[in-house]
Order: sequence, then structure tokens, then C-alpha cells
Amino acid sequence: MSNYYAAILAGGVGTRLWPLSRQARPKQALQLIGDRTMFQHAIERLAPLFPRDHVVIVTGRKHAELLQPQTPDLPDENFILEPMGRDSGPAVGLGAIHLHRRDPEAVMAMLTADHFIAYVERFRAVLAAAEKVAQTGRIVTLGIKPDFPSTGYGYVRQGESLGQFDGFEVFHAEQFTEKPDLATAQAFFESGRYSWNSGMFIWRVDRLLAEFERQRPSLHRQLMTIADALGTPDGARVLAEVWPQIEKISVDYAIMEGARDVAVIPVDIGWSDVGSWASLLDIIPGDEQGNVALSEHLAIDTHRTLVRSEKRLVVTIGLEDMIVVDTDDALLICPKDRAQDVKAVVDRLKQGERSELL
Amino acid sequence: MSNYYAAILAGGVGTRLWPLSRQARPKQALQLIGDRTMFQHAIERLAPLFPRDHVVIVTGRKHAELLQPQTPDLPDENFILEPMGRDSGPAVGLGAIHLHRRDPEAVMAMLTADHFIAYVERFRAVLAAAEKVAQTGRIVTLGIKPDFPSTGYGYVRQGESLGQFDGFEVFHAEQFTEKPDLATAQAFFESGRYSWNSGMFIWRVDRLLAEFERQRPSLHRQLMTIADALGTPDGARVLAEVWPQIEKISVDYAIMEGARDVAVIPVDIGWSDVGSWASLLDIIPGDEQGNVALSEHLAIDTHRTLVRSEKRLVVTIGLEDMIVVDTDDALLICPKDRAQDVKAVVDRLKQGERSELL
Repeated sequence: MSNYYAAILAGGVGTRLWPLSRQARPKQALQLIGDRTMFQHAIERLAPLFPRDHVVIVTGRKHAELLQPQTPDLPDENFILEPMGRDSGPAVGLGAIHLHRRDPEAVMAMLTADHFIAYVERFRAVLAAAEKVAQTGRIVTLGIKPDFPSTGYGYVRQGESLGQFDGFEVFHAEQFTEKPDLATAQAFFESGRYSWNSGMFIWRVDRLLAEFERQRPSLHRQLMTIADALGTPDGARVLAEVWPQIEKISVDYAIMEGARDVAVIPVDIGWSDVGSWASLLDIIPGDEQGNVALSEHLAIDTHRTLVRSEKRLVVTIGLEDMIVVDTDDALLICPKDRAQDVKAVVDRLKQGERSELL
Repeated sequence: MSNYYAAILAGGVGTRLWPLSRQARPKQALQLIGDRTMFQHAIERLAPLFPRDHVVIVTGRKHAELLQPQTPDLPDENFILEPMGRDSGPAVGLGAIHLHRRDPEAVMAMLTADHFIAYVERFRAVLAAAEKVAQTGRIVTLGIKPDFPSTGYGYVRQGESLGQFDGFEVFHAEQFTEKPDLATAQAFFESGRYSWNSGMFIWRVDRLLAEFERQRPSLHRQLMTIADALGTPDGARVLAEVWPQIEKISVDYAIMEGARDVAVIPVDIGWSDVGSWASLLDIIPGDEQGNVALSEHLAIDTHRTLVRSEKRLVVTIGLEDMIVVDTDDALLICPKDRAQDVKAVVDRLKQGERSELL
């Protein structure tokens, strides 16, 4: 029996997909591409590499109540519940102690619930290769071969080659860089030595916990306190007591940037983080005019425009490169190149205390 | 007691204001400007020149059922019902025979139900002057002093001056021209001798009926058949029998283009036919960014944009000169300079048999 597990972090909201994404209806619960939600895509593309009982979800209770009905073949106990959001560092630690209790030899793939992957067979193939690398004690990150000098992603620099695993060339990961400025991004892109940081990592759980102990000793102690109570009558109480004291920290900052013996596997899996409405125009094939209609759209002289409505007919005349997203209580219209500014809208709504729209 | 009457033609739909205007919700019934419908504006600006019992409405039964509750002080019997639409020529004839029966000396102002007039005092003043001209036997048209060489309106050429009436200079109307091409419109505009045809006319009813008799003898006979039965037990039956046989014809074509002794009074009354959504951007004062919000609008880097929603918050980022009209079942987005193309949308919907959206 394999000791390879997938842990899907599903705690985020995805504010850049407002007005469709809301606190109570996060991005991973949305049906954006095809007839499945992002979460359903994330689960279904794991089979047959990961049997269902080797897939765990780390998320909050409210998200779990929303997501579990979307995957009825995933048992309740596969949902590992955070009492509240503490960013990805503690979340991955919580997943790790659960898997470690189940199997001290576990290898864990930390995956995302709300990203798009076009080439799912290659995705499973690289995950299988990554497990073999991880079994050697390396921490593995999946690197995305960049299409353009993006300033929206973190980068990983490839060092020496560590050889081929299942046909994928694996490199020593020399350095993680947070989202760069454009000049830096261009230099990275032209060098050919950088991948985008996909946020998907593969590691032995004991190796990950050792990195927590070395780099974040207080967080490690808190995780161990929770781990010691797992499966005991005190488990829920200890988690509820310790978790609120844990500091928010991302897994990149907590672990990856300072980790030893990190490997990167650059791969083209048709990946997108679906970070904004604009990305759907890139992911989803458009019609002859380049329009992407996620609902009924009467397009007159309209090109490269995304339309998504709850139930209304959307009629557009003379639009180019535009995004139209319509929900029951809010309607967003913006050019594709302003799609990132949707986050500013959410901030404005917060300031205006329009919490019913958040 | 005055024998001056206003007859408001309220039979149209206003397809260029789709998706707000519908067969069952015509433009005149819409609340577009301020807190009153176009029809309410049209009625209210007549007082005190026309007392309520001197105001009649010519329209169909369905429109009357919609409009009458908007003007509760206008009695049922002031609504003159056409069995079906036959364009403005027969409609004005129907109004004329009703008023002639009531008062053979009646002077009638034929007015519109769905136009905007900014300067209502000057409007009443010119109507008062026009009555004096009409009493001399002239047919009077209110001419709108053009702002620009519009190709969207008909034109009236001013001939010799007929003198001042109440401070308004009145001219012999030499010629009516249908909507011209741009070169002609520019020549008209530059000559200073042309007014736009506002579609508002003032005439003695006997004088109008004589023009019908001279220019449209068969239509005149049909109107006289209806007139003879007015107020008798046969009235409704005769109207129902004769009206469907009447040919559709506009008042411009039936009467005005060939009428004798026509006068024009060029005037600036801040008039607009509200012929498209774009015109509302011209009529309604915008905010500092030139935006006109007829409902809640969160505007980020948005300029000169009209927003009208049934109940949704509309958020726009980076839009310029755009029109956004949102209803329960349809949403329209187009640049201001494409607002005329909304008619094409309605035609497309007809072809697609989307009659529920018409």
C-alpha cells in the first residue's frame, strides 16, 4: 500500500473573483470552468494516483460544510478542520501532524483547491515523480515553466540538475523570490533558470516537521501539543485552545524560503492560479470572436469579452477585452487589464461596511 | 373659458430604451429622469396653462391601463382609446374628432408623452403664443433650435417672418424634410434657417380636419364615420369596425408635409426626444466624473458612464462613455456612441423569438 497522501488546502476566499466569490462562497466552491467546481476539479484529477482515502482537506468548518456535499465520496473524517484561518504555514502543519499520526512514513503532496490544471495526466505523472524525489529526503516544489515575465507569481531559481525521475528533470532549488518587479521578472524570464512557484509541494511528513522544528520552533511546539492530543478525548479542546495563539504565516515564508535540500521540477501542466477574472479568458477557449460566455450572451461587435450572469441575458454591443460578472446583488464591469483591481473593490466595500456583499 | 386643449399621443414603445422599455412597459411609463415617469412629466408641465379636463390622451387600452394610475387626477374619460396602433396620423385624427365634438372652436396642441423638456415655463409660454397663431388659421409647429447637425431628426425650413407673438418670432414654414444625411444636416445647420421638427403641433381642430379632407380624403371619411357615431350606442362598434381598416401613416406624412399655411416657432426649451440611453447622459447632470447613476454605482476610474440597475450594486472599473442598463431578466452594456444599435438588439430578439424579453 502506498504511503503517498494528498493534502488540499482549501481555506481561502479568492477576493479577486468578486462578485461571484464571497466569504460564504469561496473561489474553490465556484463552478467557473466546465460543469464542476474548482474543488471538484482539484479532487477528481488526483485519481487514480491517490485513492480517495489518501486525500485530506484542510479548511475551516464553514468551507467544509460547503465543499463536502460537492464530493460525497470523500468521507467526513478526511476534512481536517482549522478553528480559524492562520494562513498556509500552520494549515500545512496541521495536515502534517494528522498524516504523521496515521503513517509516520507518509509522503505528503500539498496541493491547492482553487487552481486550474489543463494537463491532468502530466500533473499526476509529475506528482508520481515528485514522490520518488521526496522519498530521498528532498523537499520538492512543482515549478511552472513561465510563459511571460509575470510579476504576479513568486519565482524559484533552478541550480544543478539532480537527474531524471520518471522522465522529469529535477533541479536543486537555489532560491525562492517573492513576486518581483517587472525588470527583475524580465531578467528571470530571459535567464531560463527560473520557474514560477506553484505553491504545490511534496515532502516526507517527518522531513517537513523537522523543518518546522528547525525554522519555527514555537510553531512546532504548538503543533506538537495539538498532535499529542490527537485521537484523545482532549483533542478538540487542545486544538481550540492552542490554535488561536498560533501566528499567521505563509508556508513559503515559514518553511520554503529557508528549507534545506529543496528540489524543483519545472513542468508545463497548463497551470493557472485563476487569480482573477482575466485568467478565465486565457484558460477557457473562446468562440470565434474570442468571447467566453459562461451564461447566455448576445454579443454584437464584441470581442475577447468574458460574460457570466446568474440568470439574465447579457447583451453587449461594441465591447473589447471586457469582463462582465453579474450576480443577484452585484454587477461588475471592467476591462480585462483592470481585473486585478477587483481586490480594491472588495476593500472599498469593507470600508463602506457593505458586509452583505462581501 | 379657454377652448385650448392638449392631446398627448402616448401609443409608442421606445425600443431604443431596451431592456428597460418593453411592449408592456413603454418608454412613457418609465421613471428615467427624477422621481416621475416621462408621462407624469408630460402631464404635469402643462399646468396651469391647460386645466386637467383640457388634457386628453390618445393611446391603446394596455398603455392606458398602465398610465392612468400614474395620473390619478386625470379622469378615465380623458383617455381616448385606439383599438390598435395606426401611427400618429390616425391617432391625431381620433383626438381631433373627440375634441371637435366637445368644442367646434377647439384649438388643439398635439404633444408627446415621452420627450424631455428642461425649460417648462418657456414651453408653456410658447404654447400660449402658438395658440394665438393657430387662432389665425395657421397650423403651427414648434421648431427646436438645433445644437448640432443631427441626422436623427426631421427639419423645418423657416421662410418669411410672420411677426412676434408673445415675444416669440414666428415664421412661415416653407418645407419639412425627413431625417437628412450628414452633409445635408450640416448645410441646414450652418444656414441658420432650419429647426428640428419636434413633433409638437398646434392647430384649430376644424382647420386640421379640413387638411385631412383635402390631403387624405379616405382617412377623413373613415374618421367622419367614427365621429358620427361618437356618443351614440353604436360608437364603440363603429370604432371597432372602421379602425382596423385605417392605413398606418405618420402625421408628418399625412398632414404636415403637404399642409398649407404652416408656421414654425423656433424655440429653445431644452428639448430631447430621449431617443436612446445616450441622450440621458446629455440630459441628466452627471457627477464630478460625468457619471449618471440612476441606481447605486461604485465607480472606480469611471467617467461619463450611465448606470441603471433594478436593485443590484453596479461596480465599474476603468470605463469611459459607457451605458449599463440592468433589469431583472436582461443586462445591456454598450458604449454611448453605440446606443442607437439597441434597436438592432430588439430586432435580433424578435428573430430569435425571445418574445418574453420584448
